[in-house]
Parts: sequence; C-alpha cells; structure tokens
Amino acid sequence: MAKEITSRAQDYSQWYNDIILKSDLADYSAVRGCMVIKPHGFALWENMRDQLDKMFKETGHVNAYFPLFVPKSLFEAEEKNAEGFAKECAVVTHYRLKTDPDNKGKLIVDPDAKLEEELVVRPTSEAIIWNTYKGWIQSYRDLPLLINQWANVVRWEMRTRLFLRTAEFLWQEGHTAHATRQEAIDETVQMLNVYATFVEEYMALPVVKGIKTESERFAGAEDTYCIEALMQDGKALQAGTSHFLGQNFAKAFDVKFSDRENKLDYVWATSWGVSTRLIGALVMAHSDDDGLILPPRIAPLQVVIVPIFKGEEQLVQISEKVNVIVKELKALGISVKYDNSDNARPGWKFAEYEKKGIPVRIAIGARDLENNVAEVARRDEKTKESISLDSIAQHVHELLEEIQQNIYNKAKAYQQEHITKSDSWDDFVKLLDEKAGFIAAHWDGTAATEEKIKELTKATIRCIPLDNEQEAGKCILTGNPSTQRVLFARAY
Amino acid sequence: MAKEITSRAQDYSQWYNDIILKSDLADYSAVRGCMVIKPHGFALWENMRDQLDKMFKETGHVNAYFPLFVPKSLFEAEEKNAEGFAKECAVVTHYRLKTDPDNKGKLIVDPDAKLEEELVVRPTSEAIIWNTYKGWIQSYRDLPLLINQWANVVRWEMRTRLFLRTAEFLWQEGHTAHATRQEAIDETVQMLNVYATFVEEYMALPVVKGIKTESERFAGAEDTYCIEALMQDGKALQAGTSHFLGQNFAKAFDVKFSDRENKLDYVWATSWGVSTRLIGALVMAHSDDDGLILPPRIAPLQVVIVPIFKGEEQLVQISEKVNVIVKELKALGISVKYDNSDNARPGWKFAEYEKKGIPVRIAIGARDLENNVAEVARRDEKTKESISLDSIAQHVHELLEEIQQNIYNKAKAYQQEHITKSDSWDDFVKLLDEKAGFIAAHWDGTAATEEKIKELTKATIRCIPLDNEQEAGKCILTGNPSTQRVLFARAY
Ligand SMILES: [Zn+2]
Ligand SMILES: [Zn+2]
Repeated sequence: MAKEITSRAQDYSQWYNDIILKSDLADYSAVRGCMVIKPHGFALWENMRDQLDKMFKETGHVNAYFPLFVPKSLFEAEEKNAEGFAKECAVVTHYRLKTDPDNKGKLIVDPDAKLEEELVVRPTSEAIIWNTYKGWIQSYRDLPLLINQWANVVRWEMRTRLFLRTAEFLWQEGHTAHATRQEAIDETVQMLNVYATFVEEYMALPVVKGIKTESERFAGAEDTYCIEALMQDGKALQAGTSHFLGQNFAKAFDVKFSDRENKLDYVWATSWGVSTRLIGALVMAHSDDDGLILPPRIAPLQVVIVPIFKGEEQLVQISEKVNVIVKELKALGISVKYDNSDNARPGWKFAEYEKKGIPVRIAIGARDLENNVAEVARRDEKTKESISLDSIAQHVHELLEEIQQNIYNKAKAYQQEHITKSDSWDDFVKLLDEKAGFIAAHWDGTAATEEKIKELTKATIRCIPLDNEQEAGKCILTGNPSTQRVLFARAY
Repeated sequence: MAKEITSRAQDYSQWYNDIILKSDLADYSAVRGCMVIKPHGFALWENMRDQLDKMFKETGHVNAYFPLFVPKSLFEAEEKNAEGFAKECAVVTHYRLKTDPDNKGKLIVDPDAKLEEELVVRPTSEAIIWNTYKGWIQSYRDLPLLINQWANVVRWEMRTRLFLRTAEFLWQEGHTAHATRQEAIDETVQMLNVYATFVEEYMALPVVKGIKTESERFAGAEDTYCIEALMQDGKALQAGTSHFLGQNFAKAFDVKFSDRENKLDYVWATSWGVSTRLIGALVMAHSDDDGLILPPRIAPLQVVIVPIFKGEEQLVQISEKVNVIVKELKALGISVKYDNSDNARPGWKFAEYEKKGIPVRIAIGARDLENNVAEVARRDEKTKESISLDSIAQHVHELLEEIQQNIYNKAKAYQQEHITKSDSWDDFVKLLDEKAGFIAAHWDGTAATEEKIKELTKATIRCIPLDNEQEAGKCILTGNPSTQRVLFARAY
C-alpha cells in the first residue's frame, strides 16, 4: 500500500513532495517555479477560501479587484517596500510578439513594442491599491475602507517548493485605511485573530501568535504580527501575517483625509494575507507515510463509500441501501461519494482514498448487508469498527467532529512538547539539532545578535509572543541583559 | 437626481461610462487599459461567478489552477492559436529590478536578470493546459477530463473600455479532453446551453445561440459556438463562446490516449469561456438614465430599507419594526440592508440606491408606522405602492421575481423587434443606420464577401443561428446563391 511514498523517517523533504504529487494536490509545470494546482488541491483551497471569505465578510470587509500590473514608478514610491521586493519581480517590458523572420513558425518579442514604462507583476498590491485609494478618500466619512482581494501574485524565488514557495501563488490580501493609529492597530490584531481562529479551528493546526522582530518585518510595515505553526520535523512555518503599516503608504502616495474638525492628516493603513502556502503547512503538520490526512471541516470530500460485491445482483442490493445512507449523510450536511465504479478492486480504492486523505471510509459487502452493518474506517487513526446501518449517519456525523478534534489535539500535543526553554548556548544548539521545535530563549534585542545566531545555527526569531511574560535574563548568545524570552526555530 | 449621468439619447457611449463610474462598479487605474473592479462591481461578479460555478459543477466539471505564464516555446506550439494572440501579448523578459546607479531611490530593470526564455502572460490557457494534460492522459480511463479555471488573463488591446475590453480581465475557461469527436462536440454544445441558461435566467438577457463563421472563429478552433445579445443601442455583444477544438491542441502537444482496443489516437478538445465583459453587457442592456438596473437574482443587494424620521424617538420606533421585516426577508433568502445612517437625507439615499440598481427600496416613516404600511418602490419601473407591513416580506419576495421577469421581458421584446429580415443591399444599409439590431440576410458563404460587407458597413456576421431555417436566396451583397440567412450586426 502506498509504497510509492517515501517515509518521513527516510527523507522528510522527499516525503512531502511525494505526498503532494501522489495525492493529486498539485503537479509541476513547464514554467520554472510555478505549479499546477490539481482538482483535489483546488477543491481544498476553495473550502479554505470560502471559510476565510465568510470570516472576512463577518468582520465588515468587502472584496474588490485591482490590476495585476504595477507601473514601475508606482512600485518604487514606498521605498522600503520597493527595496524589499525589487529582487524578485517579474517584469513586463513588451506588449507584442511577432513572427521570427529567420525562423517561420516561431515567434520573437517585437522590439517595436517596448513599453514606455515597465510593468511589475504584483508581488503584493500595496502600491497599486494606495495609488487608487488616493482617489477614494477625502474625508473621515470615507473611512474606514475595509477591502480584501483574492488574487495571484508573483515573487521570483530562486529555490521553490510545491505550495511552500512558488514563483506564482494564490492568496488574499486585505488592505484597509483608517482615521486613527489605534483603529489601524486594532484592525491588524483583529485579522491576526481571524487567521488564528481559522487555522486552529478549520485546519486543526495550533499556532503561536506574535510580533516579528524588525529584521523579519514586512517591507514597509511598522509592525508585522504573525501566526507560527510547527511541522512534524520540528521546523516552524509562518502561516499568516497582519501588518500595521502606519502612515508609510499614505505618505508615499499622498493620501490625506480631513477629520471632523476639518484638519488634514495622512491615513493609517493595514495589510494582511494568507496564501496557498497554508496547504503546504496542512500537509506537513498532519499527514503520515500513507498519504494525506485532512481535517474534515475543510476536506474536499468527507466520506467515501465503497461497495464490496460479486456480480451485478449483489451490487444492486448494496446500492439500494447505500443510496439511503448517502441521503441521510447529505441531510446532515456531509459531503459523500459513492464509488461504485467497476474499474478497480476495493483494496485499490481503499489505498487511493487513504492517500487522498478522505477522513471517513465506509465499506459494505453482501455479508454486512445481511447483518445490517457496515465497516467504518477513520483516516486519522486507521482504525475500523462495525456500525449498525440504522445509526450509521449519526455515527459518522459525530466521528467527523471527533476526527477534527483528534487531529488538532495531536498537533497541539506536539507543539506543547516542542516549546523548550533554553538558557545556555550549548544547550540551545543541541536542542536545535536534536529536538527542534520552538526554543524560548533570551535575546538582547539587537539585530546584530539575531543575525549572528542565524549565521551560526540557521535559526531565526519566529516571533515575540503576544502577551509575552516579562522576565529578566541574559541573552543566549551575548549574555547581555534581556527582559523577555523570544521564540527561535529553524523555519520553512 | 443623478444629473451627473449623461442621458442615453445624448451620448450612449458616455452614458455607459458614467453609469459604471457613478454606480461604483469600477474605476480607471494607473495601468493603461486595466481597471479596478470596485466592491459593488465585484459583489455582482461574485454572484455571477458563484451561479456559473454551481452550473459547471452540476455538469460534472471540477476547478483547477494553471500558471499565469506561458513559456514562449509552448505558446507558439499551436500555430493558429499563437498567430491569433501574438499581437496582444504582455511579455515578461526579466525577473529582477535594481537600484538605478544614476538616480538613487529609483529602480531599473536589471539587465543581468534577463530570462533565457521569455514568458507570455496568458491571454488564454490552451497551451499551458494541453502541455500539462500530456502528463495526465494515457488511456481512455483518464477521459473525459472536465476542468475549469477561474483566472485573470491579459490581452493588450489598443482601444479599451471599462468591462467590455480591458487589457486584464477576469474570466473562467473550461478545458476538456475527450475520447471521441462526438463527445467533444456534445460538450461544446452543452456548455453553450449552460451559458445561454445563465445569461437568460440570471442576467435576464435573451440571447441568440449560433455558430461563428470561419473568419470569426477562435484561433485554433474547428468550430466556435456563441451566444449573442443585443444592447439598447441596437449593437450586438458576444456574451460567451464555446469552442470545439478538434485534435488541434492534442496534435500540437502530442497528447494521445489508448482506447479500449489499445489503439492510440489523439485526444479531442473543447474550451469555453465567459468573462467580466458580461457585466458590460448587463449594464448596456438594462440600465436607464438614472443609473443601473440589476436583475434581482444576481444583484449584490436586493432590498434596501430607508427610515424617514425626525429625532431619535421616531427612529427607535421605526427600527423596531424594520428589524422584524429584515428578519422576515432574510428568512426568505432575500439580501437586505437597513440604511439608518444619519449622515445623509432620505432623498440622497434614494438617488444613491437607484444609481446602484438595488431592485427594491422600502421607505418607512412615522406616519407609515401608524398606518401599519411602508412604501415599496421598484427600481425597474420606478413605481411605488403602499404595502401593509403584515404581508410586506411576502410581497417583496414576489415582487423580486416579477422584476426579474419584467427586465427579461423588456429585453426580449427589444430583441424580437430588432431581428429584421432584409433582402436588398440598400435596405440592409438603411436598417443598419436607422434601426440597427440583428439583420437576417442571405450571404454567399465566402470570407471575401463577409470582409467586403464589414468594410462597407462595419457590420459583421454575428452568427449562423443553431437550427437555422434553410431557405434558398441570394447574397445581400453579391447576389450569389445562398441556402440560409445569417445574422449581421454592428457589434461591441
Ligand atoms: Zn461509534
Ligand atoms: Zn402588491
């Protein structure tokens, strides 16, 4: 079964790629660093997107759509943001191809169709959006502006990995405008909490909420809030960020508003985003050597029913009963597929749905029918039980909630076991190599020390947790005084 | 009221732009030919997208996502397709910017970061998708492949118009693969019918279904099916297309499958798409000089309730009753907003919601409350009636259906009045200038005649209607024999 998937113990990184490819989440493409999101992966993304979209709308946001391209002169307006993204920009320089005069049937870029100003393919949309907001905001009555966009963005990464780091990816980016600093900060924190709720309650993945150090901040932000999750190999993964942008973009694009007293001031901004990278986190956190494990609340398909039969007559009898169960499950809001295709044996189907992470599998044969039972298998624990057909729908309903909770509990236990305090450098290095996870250690607060620790260990400061306990101590590297521990980890 | 909107009689084209901008559907952007879709416009698109997506899924399709970029060598593989789109391609040639050494704070394209192979920003995705399908299809068991993608595409148009023709637009593109020619043709026709149903039943816009002539065919297709609608100025607008691609792309990308007899053959293909252009059609077909008119089934908001009050006490009393009505409406699945904001007078609000095309407006004042009634105004006919609060929810429920039907009926009557037979050239030209709409005339079937008619009159053959009546006649231009009438029109 599923021998094609490399085990985690053997090669975690290869295991990850195998899972993605064999479970049909995604495929490589002909474009360097870009992937194809296959139907199974896209259905998963749709469920995640729809839930997030609902939560954004419940917190008062509306969707809009801004251009894919950013003219270079706008792109460079907010200097730090431009600097941060300049090295990974795809740039459109021409708007036409023509037939190669030396090679019929081939095309070349038409040198006569050079753009006067180059267009950057958006790596993020602050520039194009704040240039637009300038026309939309005059007075405090126009604020707050609470807009979200679902879009594709491009960042020309040199080393790419399916879902985790691709040249093009899908995401949402919220861009809000406010009359006061405090209101913008409140929005930043609110959206961080929305992300944390979504990732914990739907993706079943516990996170630490915190603030980034200056070196890890979003280019152009005053503060970057983040949620950080742990993968099964003990590495951390940034699952979402929410930025307090201060008045940086308002100043760069000259966006002022008149307040109730008719006084002009620059507008306060936030931006926040999560991306298809979350799918990478989901795979790495929960799956096993047999394939995907998907939390029921976002699984593209929650239940599959496989008939086990010899001959048409048995199939007809089984199908009759299954159709009733399907109806009962659907009435409970459960997504279910009856796989009665005759082009594969049950064992093959079992392995296939296991690989794809379908949370519950029901198998039913002629003997089961006689006994009025079916075999219910849960993907997370790989256990089976025989359940009466009379109560099977209700049983599955409860089982799905149990699986959701179980997946979360396992990840939570792993996280709790992998937040380790360390007070000496030797211990710190040893922990990183032998145990991994988050290491809570004192840091002297300087970028130089942070950089030095990164050079020596490849560990970075993932975040300063929100509501962090204040405690006097000595920096793990320099011994200089420190007021609090921060979370270090090697990270994706 | 709404004096800012140019009247249709005065300048139809300016009226259209005014409507889009003043009703907050969209805005111009800093990027040549690209627009910003504002929240009101995007919410409309979301409703259209969700309904279409549902219909695609009901017909067995699944969604996926393919890269934004197409390497030039793939782009040129299907020659006719490449030829058709080469002249309007945005081309990425570099992947990095750097600081301008002559001008600190400015960026230039880094000449050291030139791509080995240029990337075309997808104008349509047949090439990248069929290159991917090659890896997914080996046997008849892998067929049919029924995949749809929601995406942005870029076509570098020289003359752009909001929604109707923009350099970047949003759309969906279905790309299916089949084992037989007939199955592919059936799929092409099925999706044409899905489009027709959607446009007629949801957008309230009657269409003619037909086939394009060879000159108007999609580049790379064997046959292009289309739905054509009429705008209020008598010009036609292509609202959706469904292409039978034969084996053209399978041959270009070498996609073969082994059939049940183990015989290898090229795969048969279709592609089909509709875009944000539909919003342009919606505006042009239904709206009036006071603003948008939106069919209730896709309106972002169906009902708005405006209180008319003096002082806080009256507002409290009205709100109490309105909250009950809001609850009743929501229980009927109706989207409703209670606008009790105190920053604008009722008259201003009325004009605003009228401009935005909200189908039903309820106004309720202190006197109404005493009489247990409210004033219900419908946007399409601009009529009002006083309705008892006891039955208002049910009344509005029925009214929304009536409005949907009424908008369709009006457009249908217009369409029927504007399909005119013509049998002489002078009459044909006169009809085009004075009556417009579709002109059903005989054509000798040659591309040369079609081209000549276009040169002389700017009218094109919109389509050869499906199930067209066969009738001997003489070509409207050349007098040569013809077997059927085709539909001519000037078009967007
Ligand atoms: Zn049980
Ligand atoms: Zn009535």
